[in-house]
Amino acid sequence: MSHNSFGHLFRMTTWGESHGPAIGCVVDGCPPGIALTEADIQAHLDKRRPGQSRFTTQRREPDQVRILSGVFAHPDSGEQVTTGTPISLMIENVDARSKDYTNIASAYRPGHADFTYEAKYGLRDYRGGGRSSARETACRVAAGAVARKVLDGVTIRAALVQVGQHGIDRDKWDWDQVGENPFFSPDPEIVESWSRYLDDLRKAGSSCGAIVEVVAEGVPAGWGAPVYGKLDQDLASAMMSINAVKGVEIGAGFDAAAFTGEENADEIRMIKGKPEFLSNHAGGVLGGISSGQDLVVRFAVKPTSSILTPRRTIDRDGNETDISTKGRHDPCVGIRAVPIGEAMMALVLADHKLRHRGQNG
Amino acid sequence: MSHNSFGHLFRMTTWGESHGPAIGCVVDGCPPGIALTEADIQAHLDKRRPGQSRFTTQRREPDQVRILSGVFAHPDSGEQVTTGTPISLMIENVDARSKDYTNIASAYRPGHADFTYEAKYGLRDYRGGGRSSARETACRVAAGAVARKVLDGVTIRAALVQVGQHGIDRDKWDWDQVGENPFFSPDPEIVESWSRYLDDLRKAGSSCGAIVEVVAEGVPAGWGAPVYGKLDQDLASAMMSINAVKGVEIGAGFDAAAFTGEENADEIRMIKGKPEFLSNHAGGVLGGISSGQDLVVRFAVKPTSSILTPRRTIDRDGNETDISTKGRHDPCVGIRAVPIGEAMMALVLADHKLRHRGQNG
Amino acid sequence: MSHNSFGHLFRMTTWGESHGPAIGCVVDGCPPGIALTEADIQAHLDKRRPGQSRFTTQRREPDQVRILSGVFAHPDSGEQVTTGTPISLMIENVDARSKDYTNIASAYRPGHADFTYEAKYGLRDYRGGGRSSARETACRVAAGAVARKVLDGVTIRAALVQVGQHGIDRDKWDWDQVGENPFFSPDPEIVESWSRYLDDLRKAGSSCGAIVEVVAEGVPAGWGAPVYGKLDQDLASAMMSINAVKGVEIGAGFDAAAFTGEENADEIRMIKGKPEFLSNHAGGVLGGISSGQDLVVRFAVKPTSSILTPRRTIDRDGNETDISTKGRHDPCVGIRAVPIGEAMMALVLADHKLRHRGQNG
Amino acid sequence: MSHNSFGHLFRMTTWGESHGPAIGCVVDGCPPGIALTEADIQAHLDKRRPGQSRFTTQRREPDQVRILSGVFAHPDSGEQVTTGTPISLMIENVDARSKDYTNIASAYRPGHADFTYEAKYGLRDYRGGGRSSARETACRVAAGAVARKVLDGVTIRAALVQVGQHGIDRDKWDWDQVGENPFFSPDPEIVESWSRYLDDLRKAGSSCGAIVEVVAEGVPAGWGAPVYGKLDQDLASAMMSINAVKGVEIGAGFDAAAFTGEENADEIRMIKGKPEFLSNHAGGVLGGISSGQDLVVRFAVKPTSSILTPRRTIDRDGNETDISTKGRHDPCVGIRAVPIGEAMMALVLADHKLRHRGQNG
Repeated sequence: MSHNSFGHLFRMTTWGESHGPAIGCVVDGCPPGIALTEADIQAHLDKRRPGQSRFTTQRREPDQVRILSGVFAHPDSGEQVTTGTPISLMIENVDARSKDYTNIASAYRPGHADFTYEAKYGLRDYRGGGRSSARETACRVAAGAVARKVLDGVTIRAALVQVGQHGIDRDKWDWDQVGENPFFSPDPEIVESWSRYLDDLRKAGSSCGAIVEVVAEGVPAGWGAPVYGKLDQDLASAMMSINAVKGVEIGAGFDAAAFTGEENADEIRMIKGKPEFLSNHAGGVLGGISSGQDLVVRFAVKPTSSILTPRRTIDRDGNETDISTKGRHDPCVGIRAVPIGEAMMALVLADHKLRHRGQNG
Repeated sequence: MSHNSFGHLFRMTTWGESHGPAIGCVVDGCPPGIALTEADIQAHLDKRRPGQSRFTTQRREPDQVRILSGVFAHPDSGEQVTTGTPISLMIENVDARSKDYTNIASAYRPGHADFTYEAKYGLRDYRGGGRSSARETACRVAAGAVARKVLDGVTIRAALVQVGQHGIDRDKWDWDQVGENPFFSPDPEIVESWSRYLDDLRKAGSSCGAIVEVVAEGVPAGWGAPVYGKLDQDLASAMMSINAVKGVEIGAGFDAAAFTGEENADEIRMIKGKPEFLSNHAGGVLGGISSGQDLVVRFAVKPTSSILTPRRTIDRDGNETDISTKGRHDPCVGIRAVPIGEAMMALVLADHKLRHRGQNG
Repeated sequence: MSHNSFGHLFRMTTWGESHGPAIGCVVDGCPPGIALTEADIQAHLDKRRPGQSRFTTQRREPDQVRILSGVFAHPDSGEQVTTGTPISLMIENVDARSKDYTNIASAYRPGHADFTYEAKYGLRDYRGGGRSSARETACRVAAGAVARKVLDGVTIRAALVQVGQHGIDRDKWDWDQVGENPFFSPDPEIVESWSRYLDDLRKAGSSCGAIVEVVAEGVPAGWGAPVYGKLDQDLASAMMSINAVKGVEIGAGFDAAAFTGEENADEIRMIKGKPEFLSNHAGGVLGGISSGQDLVVRFAVKPTSSILTPRRTIDRDGNETDISTKGRHDPCVGIRAVPIGEAMMALVLADHKLRHRGQNG
Repeated sequence: MSHNSFGHLFRMTTWGESHGPAIGCVVDGCPPGIALTEADIQAHLDKRRPGQSRFTTQRREPDQVRILSGVFAHPDSGEQVTTGTPISLMIENVDARSKDYTNIASAYRPGHADFTYEAKYGLRDYRGGGRSSARETACRVAAGAVARKVLDGVTIRAALVQVGQHGIDRDKWDWDQVGENPFFSPDPEIVESWSRYLDDLRKAGSSCGAIVEVVAEGVPAGWGAPVYGKLDQDLASAMMSINAVKGVEIGAGFDAAAFTGEENADEIRMIKGKPEFLSNHAGGVLGGISSGQDLVVRFAVKPTSSILTPRRTIDRDGNETDISTKGRHDPCVGIRAVPIGEAMMALVLADHKLRHRGQNG
């Protein structure tokens, strides 16, 4: 058990605070012989990187990753590959403006972990949220990039499907559009209205929530495990561990509560000699085990608690006070949660791939 | 890592199939010296027991629990208490009608784990769903009853808040009503309409989904842990591990996606010398750590897949066929999920209580 | 983490006290489709069973095992096989004479866990040693029998190589002799002198220690893992977890301290096209990973602390007193440790086989 | 489960190869509020550092540790303390002469992990032994220094008690002498003969084994846990995980096999109102739980396999060849194992301290 590790056979341990010298992670259990370079990882980090549009925080972090261990030139090909030993990844913190945070050293920002960290530990690194900062998620994306390498034949993609109260039109879903707009929206027609909405929020110093959908194609039937090693259970755990996430659902999710059994059942036929489900309300999981259909997970991200409007709070000494965020501001943290959701999906699947073949060969 | 265990310091391992000789669990890590009798556990099992109203399956199981180890007479008081060693609990399967299930030996019921278990393992105990049966949840309730004993000062309650499309009126919430109707509804006025709705479904051989809400009061601030040991993450994992659950949310949950930062922030004031939050959109968790507010979790249960209407499917040999459920039938499995949700909450909290004091004394 | 579980992917959790209604274990992670009957397990339990000669305790336990879950008839062959779900094994306690132990209810037997259990937990089930009784090892043997089934091609055998100060002549080692005498001695010529020695001890109400050697043949090169998942580390953990064990060594063990590098190196040649080591001081492990040679582990068992000679001790209230064992008596617990050592070897290897293929396919 | 992590509640994960850019570890689960600086850790690293006398390898590593996360100025005292979040420690590799190792790129050194790593992973970082290098143990010492901080009131010391065939005179044991000679010998009179013996070995390009004894004073009764969380089991695991260790014993260890029950029993009396054991054959552990006596562990270290005398071996392609070590040479790796043994003792105890208070408050 480790409070800063995720996964069992494919296992990531992250460390670091927002304003310390660096953040990083150790990826343990990776199969050997897999080609891996810093560029493979950097490509995914660049998607999560802050400051890429006016809709995310203006902190400027190059997020340059270094591989410190666990790779070596293959004796035959000379290509840099994993060796099966722990892969240590480090990202230096560059743009850490500690002075911006002095006002929160003693007061608790509502909606943040300031109060609870201090209740638990008696102290906290308050600079930029310390360990509770979203900066930690860069490590997830880096480790997730390694996990993807283990998942030959599996395609993992995510998209933003709701911003504030504004949901996409699912009939317009086009995966090719996701990389073409600053919101990872699969529906190109909503981009303009989201832009206007977020510009207004940004100018008002406000923020909003969002919903992210993550889909994995190509997962074979049989991954996952009964009862407490369920694939959907581990996906729920993975997504809920992301900062600011307040809900997770699989397939039809909460809508399934309103279905009848007839509506909900995904019937099966033989199509071209293979079993095919005629619908996917299950979201690709039955009894905790993958069915071979697309894995579909959605999660809700609450609005950033760092807003310019003063909110009522207290300080360490029990004095009532008001607090508002100064410095950089992220009107919709849900946007940057898109690559993080992909990474968590990859981490869960890589782990379950290894767990499955451990037991079942 | 164990696919049939849940928790770390307070840890439950369950075993058994629906139609084997018995089911059971081992509870490890329980603190010593806690009074525990079979009656303490039985009270909770009786709430989950099938066949108590016409709205749940008519399987008749006494669900009589036996404590096989881990308790002893206290040397001073003579009272039966835990000894700190593993507590083995066993429940015999009595009303297992294996002949009812012969038609599903080779065909896969849509929405059930038949297909995926066989994809994973190459075979399955098909009688009553075998290991994937909701019968396993009796063990959760039994272990949860032990967990409650560890949680002095914490009150855990759950209620059914939606059946099919019919949600309760939250303004009418009255915990005292929950035990007074066969649905665990906190809103007495909805009982009659739910009864009619479920009677119609039952007669039609159909089924519906539901939403359960679980609340824990009295949890002190500071339980949980950063990043991958988050309290809400473990609650999501716990609830999603329950059979038929498709979504989990904490506090405002999916609604938070549509909030602004101003709406979402739970402001803090000093009230009678103690910090008090003025709202609880967070559901009692900030940064993965309890805030001292009520912990509020909701989960969505899909409709039972066992319905009388024939559904299209295939068999082991790849032949297309139709299947419908014969024998006993549960129109709304969400009802019996209420005590199960309570048990999973108790298991998560007992574990985190021990984890917290392990690190923080 | 569980204090009563052993292994990771192939994992055993044991429960039960010496004088409770039963003892048992849950074996989780077993691959599916492996033929398994109660008779397969019983054969190994019968080797460990007490009361088979005058040299072991006279407690008469049939040690009849029941499989309560995790097996089912294979759909094609009809043979009973594992299903991949938890295998619950239970053994009822039959010959538990609780009245024999009333004198130890309050006094601490020197060399026993009475004092430390009470220091830890504040109370203990004193009847027959409760959880600290060697009776728990029956569960290891039962789980080990399942583990052996996973280890196709691996032969695990153990023998007693020293009783008190009397070691065998290793030149006379004959595995076929091990089953032919009550000591599991591989050297037939020492049997008579051991018999005389133990008869004298038994009559004097005394006891002695012993050394057990366990050998696994047929383990392929590559099992184990670097640094903290070392095969020898897990073997050391496994053997040291057996009651009364005070030392563990691999290959040359403590003798290696007195070797030079030249003496210790196991040189390698190609023999019939395959790498062969010319000696096995390493005991089959290099860098924590199996080399393909025989795995060789030895462990030292201390003399039973239950002797008829009164020893000085104290009671719960801090009064000085004397204590001597009444009732049944085991002059050399090392004898019955032989099948237990085999079981622990099997459990370590089954776990590492699955761990290896999890990471390396 | 992680092959590169050790411990459960107090948990260390190490990473890095001998000749990569750096090595390091993440210490998770450390209680908050404990004063910790780099100097605290450096003091222990300096004891393990190579090149401090002619009796250890001449590799010159400053072994300068950096704390990258997990500490912060205490809000009241301003002192740097742990925050309860992961502590990342990094040590750069400075004196890595990769060219010395080209001859072992394809041939397997007898007694080394070259053969087995390649059997397992298909490739290895051969430079300096890569991940299997003793360099990894610097991380153990660094993490062990943190563990000591958690163990207020516990004193952990180790000494070298045998070099080759030459054991100390235990009657001359003086802890104050351990820091006064290059061997960590507690017996000053043996220093000269060890020096001569090792000088001869060094000149001959040979090597020898050794035995290390580790003692922890001040451990309260009650740490450890029954059956598979035994304190002695975890100590055996800890010590056997150190490179080149082939045997571990607790208290009387292998000698206990030759004792009678009368000789072995540690009798108990009340001395100054407190229970006192009259001897310590148990080495401070009964039934896997600490008794309050000194914890005493010994482990045997085999001779370094890197010797100048050519040994017969094969290469990757199955050709027979001879190999001898060029470059730096360590005649007795057992010497530097002394601070490593202390570190592993500290890591086991810190973990068990937290585990004990997790369950027992």
